[in-house]
Amino acid sequence: MPDSLRIGLIGHGFMGRAHSLAWQAVAPVFDLPLVPEPTAVAGRNPDAVADFARTWGWASHESDWRRLVERDDIDVVDITVPGALHAEIALAALEAGKHVLCEKPLANTLAEARAMASAAKDASTRGVLSMVGFNYRRTPALALARDLVESGRLGEVRHVRAAYLQDWISDPEFPLVWRLRKEEAGSGALGDLGAHLVDLVYFLTGQRISGVSALTETFVKERPLPQAAAGLSGVGGTGRGAVTVDDTAIFIARCEGGAVATFEATRFAPGRKNAMRIELNGSKGSLSFDFEALNELHVYDATADGAHSGFQRILATEPQHPYLQAWWPPGHSLGYDHTFVNQARDFVMAIALGTPPRPSFTDGLYVQTVLDGVETSAREGSAWKPLTWEEGI
Amino acid sequence: MPDSLRIGLIGHGFMGRAHSLAWQAVAPVFDLPLVPEPTAVAGRNPDAVADFARTWGWASHESDWRRLVERDDIDVVDITVPGALHAEIALAALEAGKHVLCEKPLANTLAEARAMASAAKDASTRGVLSMVGFNYRRTPALALARDLVESGRLGEVRHVRAAYLQDWISDPEFPLVWRLRKEEAGSGALGDLGAHLVDLVYFLTGQRISGVSALTETFVKERPLPQAAAGLSGVGGTGRGAVTVDDTAIFIARCEGGAVATFEATRFAPGRKNAMRIELNGSKGSLSFDFEALNELHVYDATADGAHSGFQRILATEPQHPYLQAWWPPGHSLGYDHTFVNQARDFVMAIALGTPPRPSFTDGLYVQTVLDGVETSAREGSAWKPLTWEEGI
Amino acid sequence: MPDSLRIGLIGHGFMGRAHSLAWQAVAPVFDLPLVPEPTAVAGRNPDAVADFARTWGWASHESDWRRLVERDDIDVVDITVPGALHAEIALAALEAGKHVLCEKPLANTLAEARAMASAAKDASTRGVLSMVGFNYRRTPALALARDLVESGRLGEVRHVRAAYLQDWISDPEFPLVWRLRKEEAGSGALGDLGAHLVDLVYFLTGQRISGVSALTETFVKERPLPQAAAGLSGVGGTGRGAVTVDDTAIFIARCEGGAVATFEATRFAPGRKNAMRIELNGSKGSLSFDFEALNELHVYDATADGAHSGFQRILATEPQHPYLQAWWPPGHSLGYDHTFVNQARDFVMAIALGTPPRPSFTDGLYVQTVLDGVETSAREGSAWKPLTWEEGI
Amino acid sequence: MPDSLRIGLIGHGFMGRAHSLAWQAVAPVFDLPLVPEPTAVAGRNPDAVADFARTWGWASHESDWRRLVERDDIDVVDITVPGALHAEIALAALEAGKHVLCEKPLANTLAEARAMASAAKDASTRGVLSMVGFNYRRTPALALARDLVESGRLGEVRHVRAAYLQDWISDPEFPLVWRLRKEEAGSGALGDLGAHLVDLVYFLTGQRISGVSALTETFVKERPLPQAAAGLSGVGGTGRGAVTVDDTAIFIARCEGGAVATFEATRFAPGRKNAMRIELNGSKGSLSFDFEALNELHVYDATADGAHSGFQRILATEPQHPYLQAWWPPGHSLGYDHTFVNQARDFVMAIALGTPPRPSFTDGLYVQTVLDGVETSAREGSAWKPLTWEEGI
Repeated sequence: MPDSLRIGLIGHGFMGRAHSLAWQAVAPVFDLPLVPEPTAVAGRNPDAVADFARTWGWASHESDWRRLVERDDIDVVDITVPGALHAEIALAALEAGKHVLCEKPLANTLAEARAMASAAKDASTRGVLSMVGFNYRRTPALALARDLVESGRLGEVRHVRAAYLQDWISDPEFPLVWRLRKEEAGSGALGDLGAHLVDLVYFLTGQRISGVSALTETFVKERPLPQAAAGLSGVGGTGRGAVTVDDTAIFIARCEGGAVATFEATRFAPGRKNAMRIELNGSKGSLSFDFEALNELHVYDATADGAHSGFQRILATEPQHPYLQAWWPPGHSLGYDHTFVNQARDFVMAIALGTPPRPSFTDGLYVQTVLDGVETSAREGSAWKPLTWEEGI
Repeated sequence: MPDSLRIGLIGHGFMGRAHSLAWQAVAPVFDLPLVPEPTAVAGRNPDAVADFARTWGWASHESDWRRLVERDDIDVVDITVPGALHAEIALAALEAGKHVLCEKPLANTLAEARAMASAAKDASTRGVLSMVGFNYRRTPALALARDLVESGRLGEVRHVRAAYLQDWISDPEFPLVWRLRKEEAGSGALGDLGAHLVDLVYFLTGQRISGVSALTETFVKERPLPQAAAGLSGVGGTGRGAVTVDDTAIFIARCEGGAVATFEATRFAPGRKNAMRIELNGSKGSLSFDFEALNELHVYDATADGAHSGFQRILATEPQHPYLQAWWPPGHSLGYDHTFVNQARDFVMAIALGTPPRPSFTDGLYVQTVLDGVETSAREGSAWKPLTWEEGI
Repeated sequence: MPDSLRIGLIGHGFMGRAHSLAWQAVAPVFDLPLVPEPTAVAGRNPDAVADFARTWGWASHESDWRRLVERDDIDVVDITVPGALHAEIALAALEAGKHVLCEKPLANTLAEARAMASAAKDASTRGVLSMVGFNYRRTPALALARDLVESGRLGEVRHVRAAYLQDWISDPEFPLVWRLRKEEAGSGALGDLGAHLVDLVYFLTGQRISGVSALTETFVKERPLPQAAAGLSGVGGTGRGAVTVDDTAIFIARCEGGAVATFEATRFAPGRKNAMRIELNGSKGSLSFDFEALNELHVYDATADGAHSGFQRILATEPQHPYLQAWWPPGHSLGYDHTFVNQARDFVMAIALGTPPRPSFTDGLYVQTVLDGVETSAREGSAWKPLTWEEGI
Repeated sequence: MPDSLRIGLIGHGFMGRAHSLAWQAVAPVFDLPLVPEPTAVAGRNPDAVADFARTWGWASHESDWRRLVERDDIDVVDITVPGALHAEIALAALEAGKHVLCEKPLANTLAEARAMASAAKDASTRGVLSMVGFNYRRTPALALARDLVESGRLGEVRHVRAAYLQDWISDPEFPLVWRLRKEEAGSGALGDLGAHLVDLVYFLTGQRISGVSALTETFVKERPLPQAAAGLSGVGGTGRGAVTVDDTAIFIARCEGGAVATFEATRFAPGRKNAMRIELNGSKGSLSFDFEALNELHVYDATADGAHSGFQRILATEPQHPYLQAWWPPGHSLGYDHTFVNQARDFVMAIALGTPPRPSFTDGLYVQTVLDGVETSAREGSAWKPLTWEEGI
């Protein structure tokens, strides 16, 4: 009979739902040595959190996250609230000796991220582990992509083409939800979407960004105040307020391994619902991916017979592919939320084995460093901004 | 506090896993008025079923399905074993007053299917409901497709192009698993894959098939006996045995509403992992679908401005689309197993509301009638075989 | 200075334009040893043919095709008129010792086709060559496909999936142009579109069809009489007339090499403009093609590393690909009319080298035999119709 | 009988072939009021140019371009030699009162481009016309795209995503052909590929670029000296030389109308043969294009019913589409070289009507200004470089 791992979830919005489903499915699907137990959930609104706990099978609930963090019957603190609260909660949880899974981006400011990475490093010496929730790393096709790059199939990576395109706020009457306010979200498309790209490019290529020239833009400066908001949608109420984050961020970059890159994050690309696209070109081959077709990886092998070669559309649904042994027969696609199940698996296995998981808070700090560089370059008229990363933390 | 609905699962292979996950996720995701409770699972091997019950959270287990069917604490019997056992179990369960969800195809023979449809009809007069597990109806893109056809967007449907292509047995050394033996599986590609096509064409167009000319073929006549089998894969052992089912079945058909159709089911299409493809052409438009990209529906509107029209790639991931209100933001794809969650939702809601769900056992009998016609035509040298369906049942 | 080859074109509709352009471009593009000279064009309407000759650079014109056939200064007779005239013209031209390029399908009836194949065989003994204008064989991607099959890359071909989908008459008010009248066109979608499929499947696989079960349908029975017609379009006039050809033909088939096949030809698939699609599945791999993306060939190699393989999208635009050495750099696509230039090249080279070109009139007779079998099966209620081919001719 | 327009072609490489084919086809295809006559071709090597003239039907030839420019029997000078010679030839031709069609990019330096634009402006007052050969504007799908943007279908354009990806020099042993030497080519991927993007974005959106931050890179610094070169290919000889142009150029930009943009030009994207891709996102819709599928335009209408909308794949092969009335039936694709025929048509019509064609030399100067800004920014460490354009010329 495997031991249980007692989970405390903080936040129960869209992300809280996705994490709940994952904690529930992960043990049977992967037959884990430690079985996550949905022990407690915390949320500000007592009725709402009670309701959520009942519906989603959490054994108890708290209306103050501090109480959850302090409870003795919690092994893991899972943070799914907006970025403004990440640092405070994570620091408290690590201090309390809980393993921490923190949603991305790690924090809203570089200073917070630095403090978190530092605390996480200290905690790891005491066997307390932490990880950032860059769930897209757990897409089988992207995990396969990384394996291909790591094994040298692409040769030296020279080009990175990364764009994350959505369209949910291109209507100017879409209300001013929390994701459009700097106080809560830290930044707009940059932190929400660009952060994924920056993390994934590092994950896939092993190359970090050494400098950027960037620009950001806010196309719609003012929006109706929200009457109510749920997840990414919302209904406009009376009055209008200023949008205080970027609607889009685009930048060019150089990577430490010699690759050059273009990046783009936007919520103003009509018809692109969740088009997170990455293409890599190396000296020996290329690969491309689009999250709107998340089970597919397109790979080109430049060393093969030229006359009979082209991009291969690999359905990343075979048992040999990352995570897939545990799922369905070939060709039976996974969806968005399976990335959270796979992520939960990796975190649980890391705890079971006592090996620090990736992306670490130091990896999260790296991402934050790039986001900060992008904002600085944009503020300084797209001037080139060299970047250095703090390795030690 | 919603009431609970006590589920008894029979069979715990690949399908048993998919159903288990669905029963677990359905209530929180859809916030149902009746909450499925994983009460008991039955399987022949006592150790295996005990292990499965523990891993997947089933409260109890039985090694004889008859005991499960007789238990007072079971409301729903969910049948996921091979087709040879469907009739016996379903008849017993209906007799015992349990609602029945039965995997497809309904049965291995027309006679069995007829008995089941008849029993289901009787049971329904006593408030006992039944449904066939044609889960692909619950793919949001296909449910959307049906809505479009029903609302007249395609006009009169004239062409049906249906093919279900897999490749998992094109290697002649793949072993003789149960799906390749007539005694257990009833038929080969025809019943496994073709059944889905026949059901879906009826679901989508409302037209039943009135006649067929068919041919079937078994490309690899003999295979290694299996050493062990799990799901669709397996490892060859010593000795060889005869393949007693079709490797492929292809047929042309006329439909009651005037459409003409081509059908093909095969497990010998290298590179096609789970390519269930349907295209419909009507007097006003067309639509096409491929399960390898299950979140997409391609729709053409012939009544629109000709110069500026083409097939639209609709990502069936919007809140307005069937089932999607309960899931993720736009563009966040679902996977194969979500069809089972959606199916569980429909079955639970039917029970909660007391309205007979579709596809009914009569619908399953219709599919069986077509499969039988296909086999008859193939046996008779591809002669035309007119079909009639038993409506009354 | 290469010798010239004096061309006489009969017919100057859509096909006459395509052939004119090809005769003009072929020598410089391919640097041929024989240079086609546009010597004469024939057409019934004296003014129209004179106008065409002037615009397209034909040195002279005739209003009676017989005069053109008899002229001493003509080496090649190129027949682009409707099928009803093919036999008479081709027989006269062969008799007159002219090489003949005849548009597809070879003839409107099996008897005519047989007479033509017989005459062509006789003529070839006198060094007079003939070829059928199945131009799609000259699509580089399809010529590449054939090379792949021939070299064994697909292994034994088991499945053929062939469909030719257009939509230009799905509007019931589209007028009754000559292609919809049996007297002139012989048949409808079957002869116009299906003929290409039948020829290509033979070309690609080397397997001929040994039996069919077929059905045909005419969805729109009556149409406005045409006021004027040009190419495939037209404007409706007063009065209505009966459509005397099939709107669609679908059939299943067995091939002499063991493959099974589905075929479909229709002009009632809204949104499909020129979707000639062929997929082959063999014991070692698969390939698929769609003429709407004519520069692409999709190939799957089942013998490659399973985890890292998928359909390859080969852009058939490399210098190593058939015909491409003479054209543009990699990735610079060819279009529809380049197939006629490539066809002209093959015919001119056959004449220059004195080697009988393919598809021969005997190949055209084979296609006609299949079309006839399809019509017979359809007329006899989709009964199975075994086919034999006349090899000797 | 239409008048003739006497063409003098300078250069007979890959571009000379494409232009020759176009001059030959354009009059019959479009039934033009002025018929281009292939009067003379000039090339440095007397034997080669004589050979080319004979093969391609040019009535005479010159081994000194100056003689061609001076001939009285030439109306149009068509310049297809490398960029280093553009200015000198074009200035002489305009001075001699010839209409000039000049291949892109207009020149190798900003100063040359300025002189050419100025001379062209003067010449136009004397009825002498000039045009730059940005042939991609003549792709029907892109001409359709521009019509859609111009008619407001996309609303206000906010995002531009432009990339031109090739792979023909990613092999380090590919020889040092003229396109890799600054003296002849001016720049590398930037001028060859990026120039097309810059022109097309202006063509499509009507917005010019007002500032850039750029970086360029040369991945392979030294290559084998070429033994012989033909078109884009070549064979390496003995010795090595320095590559003096960029292998790639990437930049971010702001446009005068408020759009933000990413640009990338590279010859180091393995598997991308001629992937010129443009995507535009506006306040009301989006469109995207890839030259590897040049007959397709993908369009999204954000004002349509959200639940039933997606990107439409428009086959730009309908008679209502730009240029298509003259070509083939729906769905019958055009290829790369048809863009030159369409371009020739536009230039001939401009001469026939006496209306200055676009892109003018002033448009070419604009492109040169952007290329120059990109090079300056790249040289200055990716600093932001504001751009102004000379309107008056």
